[in-house]
Amino acid sequence: MAGGRLGVALLGAGRLGAAHARTLASLPEVHLAVVADPAPAARELGARFGARTVADAREAILDPAVEAVVIVTPTNAHAVQIEAAARAKKAIFCEKPIALDVPSTERALAVVKECDVPLQIGFQRRFDSGFAEARRRIVAGEIGRVHLLRSVSFDPYPPPPHYIPTCGGQFVDMTIHDLDVARFVTGSEVESVSAVGTALGPQAGAFRAADDWDTTVLALRFESGALGSIVNSRQSGYGYDIHTEVLGDRGGLKVGYERHTPITRYDQAGAHHDYVPYFPERFAQAYTAELQAFVEAVRGGKPVTPTGHDGLMALRIALAATESARHGGAWTPVS
Amino acid sequence: MAGGRLGVALLGAGRLGAAHARTLASLPEVHLAVVADPAPAARELGARFGARTVADAREAILDPAVEAVVIVTPTNAHAVQIEAAARAKKAIFCEKPIALDVPSTERALAVVKECDVPLQIGFQRRFDSGFAEARRRIVAGEIGRVHLLRSVSFDPYPPPPHYIPTCGGQFVDMTIHDLDVARFVTGSEVESVSAVGTALGPQAGAFRAADDWDTTVLALRFESGALGSIVNSRQSGYGYDIHTEVLGDRGGLKVGYERHTPITRYDQAGAHHDYVPYFPERFAQAYTAELQAFVEAVRGGKPVTPTGHDGLMALRIALAATESARHGGAWTPVS
Amino acid sequence: MAGGRLGVALLGAGRLGAAHARTLASLPEVHLAVVADPAPAARELGARFGARTVADAREAILDPAVEAVVIVTPTNAHAVQIEAAARAKKAIFCEKPIALDVPSTERALAVVKECDVPLQIGFQRRFDSGFAEARRRIVAGEIGRVHLLRSVSFDPYPPPPHYIPTCGGQFVDMTIHDLDVARFVTGSEVESVSAVGTALGPQAGAFRAADDWDTTVLALRFESGALGSIVNSRQSGYGYDIHTEVLGDRGGLKVGYERHTPITRYDQAGAHHDYVPYFPERFAQAYTAELQAFVEAVRGGKPVTPTGHDGLMALRIALAATESARHGGAWTPVS
Amino acid sequence: MAGGRLGVALLGAGRLGAAHARTLASLPEVHLAVVADPAPAARELGARFGARTVADAREAILDPAVEAVVIVTPTNAHAVQIEAAARAKKAIFCEKPIALDVPSTERALAVVKECDVPLQIGFQRRFDSGFAEARRRIVAGEIGRVHLLRSVSFDPYPPPPHYIPTCGGQFVDMTIHDLDVARFVTGSEVESVSAVGTALGPQAGAFRAADDWDTTVLALRFESGALGSIVNSRQSGYGYDIHTEVLGDRGGLKVGYERHTPITRYDQAGAHHDYVPYFPERFAQAYTAELQAFVEAVRGGKPVTPTGHDGLMALRIALAATESARHGGAWTPVS
Repeated sequence: MAGGRLGVALLGAGRLGAAHARTLASLPEVHLAVVADPAPAARELGARFGARTVADAREAILDPAVEAVVIVTPTNAHAVQIEAAARAKKAIFCEKPIALDVPSTERALAVVKECDVPLQIGFQRRFDSGFAEARRRIVAGEIGRVHLLRSVSFDPYPPPPHYIPTCGGQFVDMTIHDLDVARFVTGSEVESVSAVGTALGPQAGAFRAADDWDTTVLALRFESGALGSIVNSRQSGYGYDIHTEVLGDRGGLKVGYERHTPITRYDQAGAHHDYVPYFPERFAQAYTAELQAFVEAVRGGKPVTPTGHDGLMALRIALAATESARHGGAWTPVS
Repeated sequence: MAGGRLGVALLGAGRLGAAHARTLASLPEVHLAVVADPAPAARELGARFGARTVADAREAILDPAVEAVVIVTPTNAHAVQIEAAARAKKAIFCEKPIALDVPSTERALAVVKECDVPLQIGFQRRFDSGFAEARRRIVAGEIGRVHLLRSVSFDPYPPPPHYIPTCGGQFVDMTIHDLDVARFVTGSEVESVSAVGTALGPQAGAFRAADDWDTTVLALRFESGALGSIVNSRQSGYGYDIHTEVLGDRGGLKVGYERHTPITRYDQAGAHHDYVPYFPERFAQAYTAELQAFVEAVRGGKPVTPTGHDGLMALRIALAATESARHGGAWTPVS
Repeated sequence: MAGGRLGVALLGAGRLGAAHARTLASLPEVHLAVVADPAPAARELGARFGARTVADAREAILDPAVEAVVIVTPTNAHAVQIEAAARAKKAIFCEKPIALDVPSTERALAVVKECDVPLQIGFQRRFDSGFAEARRRIVAGEIGRVHLLRSVSFDPYPPPPHYIPTCGGQFVDMTIHDLDVARFVTGSEVESVSAVGTALGPQAGAFRAADDWDTTVLALRFESGALGSIVNSRQSGYGYDIHTEVLGDRGGLKVGYERHTPITRYDQAGAHHDYVPYFPERFAQAYTAELQAFVEAVRGGKPVTPTGHDGLMALRIALAATESARHGGAWTPVS
Repeated sequence: MAGGRLGVALLGAGRLGAAHARTLASLPEVHLAVVADPAPAARELGARFGARTVADAREAILDPAVEAVVIVTPTNAHAVQIEAAARAKKAIFCEKPIALDVPSTERALAVVKECDVPLQIGFQRRFDSGFAEARRRIVAGEIGRVHLLRSVSFDPYPPPPHYIPTCGGQFVDMTIHDLDVARFVTGSEVESVSAVGTALGPQAGAFRAADDWDTTVLALRFESGALGSIVNSRQSGYGYDIHTEVLGDRGGLKVGYERHTPITRYDQAGAHHDYVPYFPERFAQAYTAELQAFVEAVRGGKPVTPTGHDGLMALRIALAATESARHGGAWTPVS
C-alpha cells in the first residue's frame, strides 16, 4: 500500500455490488482492482470502472494487487469467502449475515481471529447520519438512561418467491438490521426476545410454505433493563419505511423521515408528497460512509466496526426470535 | 324531555369533570342540572354553569330533573353508580374503566341490560377526528385487509405515587385506550396478547412496589390474523405522544401529529416546535364530540357507542396482558 | 353588570355571526340578550341560545339589558352602528373593516372617542395562539431586531360575484388581515407600500369589472427599516393557507401549519394529508379568544385591543396598496 | 473522444471547484485531465484525482486532451475564459453569472454562437429533483395555468466584506438563482420587476458602502399575466432556506424541505431538528446532476440547458431589480 491506494476486490456484482463498485470508484484512496462474478453483467461493470473481471471469487481473493475484499455475494458463499480471504491475509468487508446458522458463523470468525485480519459487517444503518447521530447523543447522555427502543422496518414489496426459502427467514434476513440497530443505539445486549408472525401479503403462500412470515412483531428485554419493540413488514405498499425511536430519562430521539423528493403538491384532496422508495435511496449516504470507514480503518491500521462479533450477536437474537415465533414464549439469544 | 333540553347530572368535579361540565354547558340541547362532588371546588363549578351542587352522587342520580348521568368519579365508584343510575332509569355516560375486575364489570353490565338503559364508555379516542376517520377509511376498504396495527401512548410524566397502587396497573389504567383503539380501528377481536414491562422512570419505586411497570411493550394477535404492537410509557419527558398506525394490503394510515401551537422557531440549532402537552389539549375535540354523540343518541333514542361490552372487552385484554407481563407467555383474553 | 353577566347584543346573524353567538353562549360571564338580524334564520339562532331576536340593530343597541354590542353586519353598516352604540354608551366589538374609506372610519372613531366607550376590532389573528406567541417572543427579544416579514393568505375559493364590487377590493377586504399582522408582529408602522395585482381565477371577469384582482403581491417598508412581503390569492384551490414568517438578527419564527385532521394516508403515490379548509377551522380558537378578551376587558374596565386606531391604520395601508396596484410606484399610507 | 471518456479541464479550484472535481471524478464517462488554478491547494486537488495541475487557465483550455472546460473561477474571469474556450472549440460549462454587465455577457455569447460550441450555465437548481419535478408537473398541466410564484432564498450568514463590492450586488449575485427558477418553472418571461432593499445584518455597513442590501423583496409581473414574489436575505441566522411555491388553477406545488439530518430530538421544550446548513448540502444532488447532464449532452451532441441566453435573461432582470431598488418603480428587464 505504502501511501498508495488500497487495492480492492469486489466479490459479487448484483444490485448492491454495483452500488458498492460506484462508491469504491469514487474513493480516491481506493483502486478497484478486480470484480469477481460469473454473471455477464459483471464484465461491463468492471470495464466501466477500469477493473479486471474474473468469474471465480478465489482468483480475485488471491490476486496480489488485492489488499481487501468486499463480499456482496449470496449469503451461502459468505463464510467460505471470509475464510479464504482471511487465510490470504486480506482485510474483509462482508454483507450481513455471515451465515444463516451460528456454527458456520463462529467457524468463520475463528479463522478471522486466527489470521488476525479486519472483518467489518455491512450493517450500514450504523453509518447513516441519523442513526450515527442518535448513538453519539446517547453516549453523550442527551436523553439519559434508555427506557425503550422502537424500531420499524417496512420493505415496499416482498422478495420474489424463490428467494424466500433460502434467505434464513424474516428475522435473519430483514429484522437483523433492527437488531443490530438495537444493540448499537442502546449499547446494551438483548437478554430475551419474544416474537409473533403472520403471513397476509401477496407472497403469503410462499412465506407459509417456508414456515416463515411477512409481518412480525418482536418484544425485547435488554440487559440494561430497557425494553424494545420491533415491527417488520415485507410489504408496506407505499415505500421503504425505516424509523427508530429511543425514549430515555430526558426525552426521546427519532431517526427517520417521511419524504424523498423535496416537492409537495397541494390540491383539493390536501397535501401530497412522495415516500422513500427503497434502501438504495434511503441509505445512499450510509453505503458510501461504511466503505469509506472500512477503507480508512484498513489503511490506518485501526479497528473496524461493526465487527464479526456484532454480526454473530444479531444472528443469535434473530434465531431466538424465530424460535419464539414458532414455539411461543421468550427466548434468550445464547449460542 | 319532549323537545326540551336533556337534564344531566355530572358525578365528579375533578379536572376531567370540570372539562365535561364546560362541554355540557356549551351544548344547547343540554341542561346541566346537578354537579355531584363533596369537594369544595364543585360548588364553584356548579355556580359557574348555573347547576345545583350536591355532595352525594345518589342524590344527583335520583333528581327528577336528571335524565342522564355523566360519571367522572374515581374508578372504584363507577360500578355502583352505574347500577344506581340504571335502576333509576337514567342514561349513563361513564369514564373508563367500569371496574378493575371482570366480575364487577359484568355485574354492572347485567344491571344495565336488565334496566335497559343506554351506557356509553368514555373511550374518547373513537371520537377524535383522526381515529374516527381511520375507522371510516378502513371500513370503506381504503387500505384493504389490515396486516398490522402499531399504537403508542406516552404520558408526559408519571402519576403521583398514591395513585399507582389503586389504578389497576398500567394496562388497565392506560393501555386500555390503545386496546380499545385496536378493537375499534381493526374491527377484530384480540385472540392473544403477550407483554413485557419494566420500571425505570422517576416513580419506578412506586411502580415496582405495586408489582407494576412504567414502560411496557405488548404484542397482539387478532382473530383476523393481523398482528398488533403497543408500547406505553408513563413518562416521555417531552409531552403526550399518541400515535396509531395501521398497515394493510394497500398502504397505511397514521393517526397522530407532532405539534401543538402553530409556531416554529428557527435558530442556530435548527427548527423547534412545541409538543402536545397532555390529554386535555390532544383530545379537546374528542371530549366534546363524545358527549355530543351521547346526548344526540339519548335524545334520539339511538344506540350509544362504545358500549359497556366494549369496556369489558378492553378490560379483559388488559388483564390478560397483566398476566403475561407477570408470568410470561401469550394469554387469551377470556373472562 | 355588578358582578353579574355582561349583557350582549349580536348584530348580524350570518355565518360568522352564528359562530360568535356560539362562542358568546359558551362564556359563563356573558348573557346573550339579543340577536338583531332581519333574516329568518336569526330567529332560530336566537331561540337556540335563549336570546330575544329583533330585526332592527338600533332596537338591540338601545335595549337596556345590553351593555355591549358585537357587530357582524355587512361592512357598510359598521360605521353607523358603531356611532349609535357609542352614543348609547355601549362597549363595541366590530368586525373589520370599520368602513371602506378613511373619512367614514375617522368619523366613527371620533364619536367613539367623544363617547369614551371601548371599541375592539375583529382582527382575530392577534388572538391565534401562533401569532400571539410570535408577538410575545419578538417583544422578549428572541429573534433580535426584525429584518423581514413574509405573509401569505390564500382563500380556498373566490367569493360570489355579487360580493366583489362592494367589498372594497382585495386589499381592504382580505389583505387587511396581513397588514394588521404586519403591524402587530413587528411593532412597527408601515412607511410605504407598493403592490401589483392580476386576475386569473374563476371569478377573474368579476374582479376585472370591479377594477380589482384575485392575486396580489405587496412589498412593504417599515419605519423600523425592515421589509415586508405579502402575497394573497382569492383561490388556492386546495384550502385556506395562512402563513407568516418573521426573520430577525437571531433567526426566524413561522406561524402556520399544513394539516387539519390528524390522519395521514400512505399509498403507492406517497403520503397524503388534508389541508385546513377555511377560516372557521383555522381560527376557531382565535375567534373564541378575541371575544373572551373583549368580555374580560369590558368587565374589568381595562383597555381593549386591537383598537379602532389599528383598524384605521390597516385601512390606510390597504388603500395605499390599492393606489399602487392601479397607478404603480410606492405609496405612503397617510390619511 | 471516439467512444472514450470526455477530457475535461476544471478552471478554478475553490470550494465549489473542488466539489465539481469530485463529481467529475465519479463520472465514468469523464477524464479529469487538468485542474487550472494558481492557488497551492489546486496541486493537491489535481493529485488526488490524477489530473495535471496548471496555474494558467489558458494553458488548460488549449490542452489537446481537453474537450470541455468547467469554469468555476471568479466572475470577472468568466467572459474571457468563455471566449477563449469557444475559440478553441471546447464545450463550456460556466458558473453563473457570465458577467456583471449585459454588454460583456452579450459579447461572450456572440463568440460562443460564432464558434458554435455548447455553453451551459450553472443554474443548478434546475437539476434539483424538486425543481425539476415542479417543472415537469407544470408542463404536464398538473396545476393548470400558473397564477403566482413565490421564492425564498436565505443564506445562513453574509459573505466576507471584501466580497461585497465586487459581486455585482445581491440581485446579480444571489437573487439570480430565484430569477432563473422563476423563468424555468413558469416557462414565462418577466415583463417587469420592482424591488426594495435594506441592510440590517452583521455586514450592513459593507452592504451600504457598496450601495447594496442584505435583505430584499421583489415583485415580478410575468408576460403570462402571473405574478411573482421573491424575498432574499444574506443572513437567516439558522441555515440555508430555499423554498419556491407555485400556485395555479388547480392547486399548488412547493419545492423545499425543512431538515437535514434524519434525526429529531424531543424534550421538555418540544421537538427539534436541524436545518440544511448551506448550498453544498442542499444541492449536492443537483451539482452532480448538472455536470452529468452537461457531459451526456456534449458526448451525445445534444443541446445543453440552461443556455447562455438563460444566463443573459436572468442577469437583465437582476439589473432591472437593482435599478428599481435604487430609484423606485417597476422596471422592464430589456437590454
